[in-house]
Amino acid sequence: MNLREKYGEWGIILGATEGVGKAFAEKIASEGMSVVLVGRREEKLQELGKSISETYGVDHMVIRADFAQSDCTDKIFEATKDLDMGFMSYVACFHTFGKLQDTPWEKHEQMINVNVMTFLKCFYHYMGIFAKQDRGAVINVSSLTAISSSPYNAQYGAGKSYIKKLTEAVAAECESTNVDVEVITLGTTITPSLLSNLPGGPAGEAVMKAAMTPEACVEEAFDNLGKSLSVIAGEHNKANVHNWQANKTDDEYIRYMGSFYSNN
Amino acid sequence: MNLREKYGEWGIILGATEGVGKAFAEKIASEGMSVVLVGRREEKLQELGKSISETYGVDHMVIRADFAQSDCTDKIFEATKDLDMGFMSYVACFHTFGKLQDTPWEKHEQMINVNVMTFLKCFYHYMGIFAKQDRGAVINVSSLTAISSSPYNAQYGAGKSYIKKLTEAVAAECESTNVDVEVITLGTTITPSLLSNLPGGPAGEAVMKAAMTPEACVEEAFDNLGKSLSVIAGEHNKANVHNWQANKTDDEYIRYMGSFYSNN
Repeated sequence: MNLREKYGEWGIILGATEGVGKAFAEKIASEGMSVVLVGRREEKLQELGKSISETYGVDHMVIRADFAQSDCTDKIFEATKDLDMGFMSYVACFHTFGKLQDTPWEKHEQMINVNVMTFLKCFYHYMGIFAKQDRGAVINVSSLTAISSSPYNAQYGAGKSYIKKLTEAVAAECESTNVDVEVITLGTTITPSLLSNLPGGPAGEAVMKAAMTPEACVEEAFDNLGKSLSVIAGEHNKANVHNWQANKTDDEYIRYMGSFYSNN
Repeated sequence: MNLREKYGEWGIILGATEGVGKAFAEKIASEGMSVVLVGRREEKLQELGKSISETYGVDHMVIRADFAQSDCTDKIFEATKDLDMGFMSYVACFHTFGKLQDTPWEKHEQMINVNVMTFLKCFYHYMGIFAKQDRGAVINVSSLTAISSSPYNAQYGAGKSYIKKLTEAVAAECESTNVDVEVITLGTTITPSLLSNLPGGPAGEAVMKAAMTPEACVEEAFDNLGKSLSVIAGEHNKANVHNWQANKTDDEYIRYMGSFYSNN
């Protein structure tokens, strides 16, 4: 039984343009699902949708939306209201570097909208549909910064932690139903966003040593869907988190993360 | 050097009416700080302020505010703008029980405002003041549900996780300054809110076994201020978290938390 037979005709990827979002879209299309691709860069999404339709013989729909706009979900929900929805993944994220109080409030508003508010609206909306039809799946994307916290990048870690904890709880709530929910926590993933934000020197090299491809992350997420509630991607990342939690204090973990960007 | 000499004349407690917030207000007043008490129940806050002024000989100010209202911070910041501020603690929280998608959207809006948005606005505002004067302290309050996640109470755990991770990061960012920031993660605390939400039977009894008084939590927070970034209150809670993280999977922890409320 492929994903389309199990969960439904359409899946929506919030933040589909590149990297992990693109890998999610390719994966569900390869298992027969048509894809709703949502993001800011309409032209790139149209290209991706066309390529997916040609490769996998599924439909695609592109919705241009800026997740930082508080009303952006209105048109997303309107555009998908007549589709047989069966999958959602929230991949979008936005961050800026710097101390909390040195970052302009407008940037904080954008971050909290992308990383928390729009996520919550989308998760709530599609969970309502999936629970009602007792069919569907959600995989949301978190980050190791959600576990460690992320000095000089505080909103990002906090938002990713919100996504992780909300998704874990909902995953447990629907475990005895036919709706499968999971959060996958990514370490370093080789995406355009990573490459443009990588710190220089030994810190950057350490980061790249554990880096995974988006495709490997997505594969691990689907391997665990319906079995696990919360997964840390990759053996290296799993071992790192376990070692930290067993052997180090929270303060040591936080300060270590802060050391990566403290010169910014 | 008492808290007033170290940090400044006034401290603000967001969510001061009872329990942990009240204990924070009493503590800083006992060390010479005047208190800004913020909450919904103006009459109770006036009573508390009067009692604090009589007992400790400090000033008090009461601000009636509903943290669920998105513009509630306007009048808080206006009312404190001419005070010599030196301390802030965000204690307020709000939650409802039930599955995510079964909870009306209006309740989610209230929860996200109280637990995330108003917190962020207050933290950002007072951190700006404290960083500029290079003097001040912040102690924010999180919960063990931030570490475990909290099925059937998902927004609460996720919001408390946001508070924990944001505060940890900012605590690291200002560690080399004269601003001290810390988050204290509480387990069961004997507050009116706990007593009214306690599950029945063995689950409730297990919860009460590890319960701490608000005063003990606040004392531990101040003992660690300027030394630790993130503290779990109480030896019992510290040991529990450590044992879970060293010996159990995230899924086991999440499902265990879900077992407390799965009959709701």
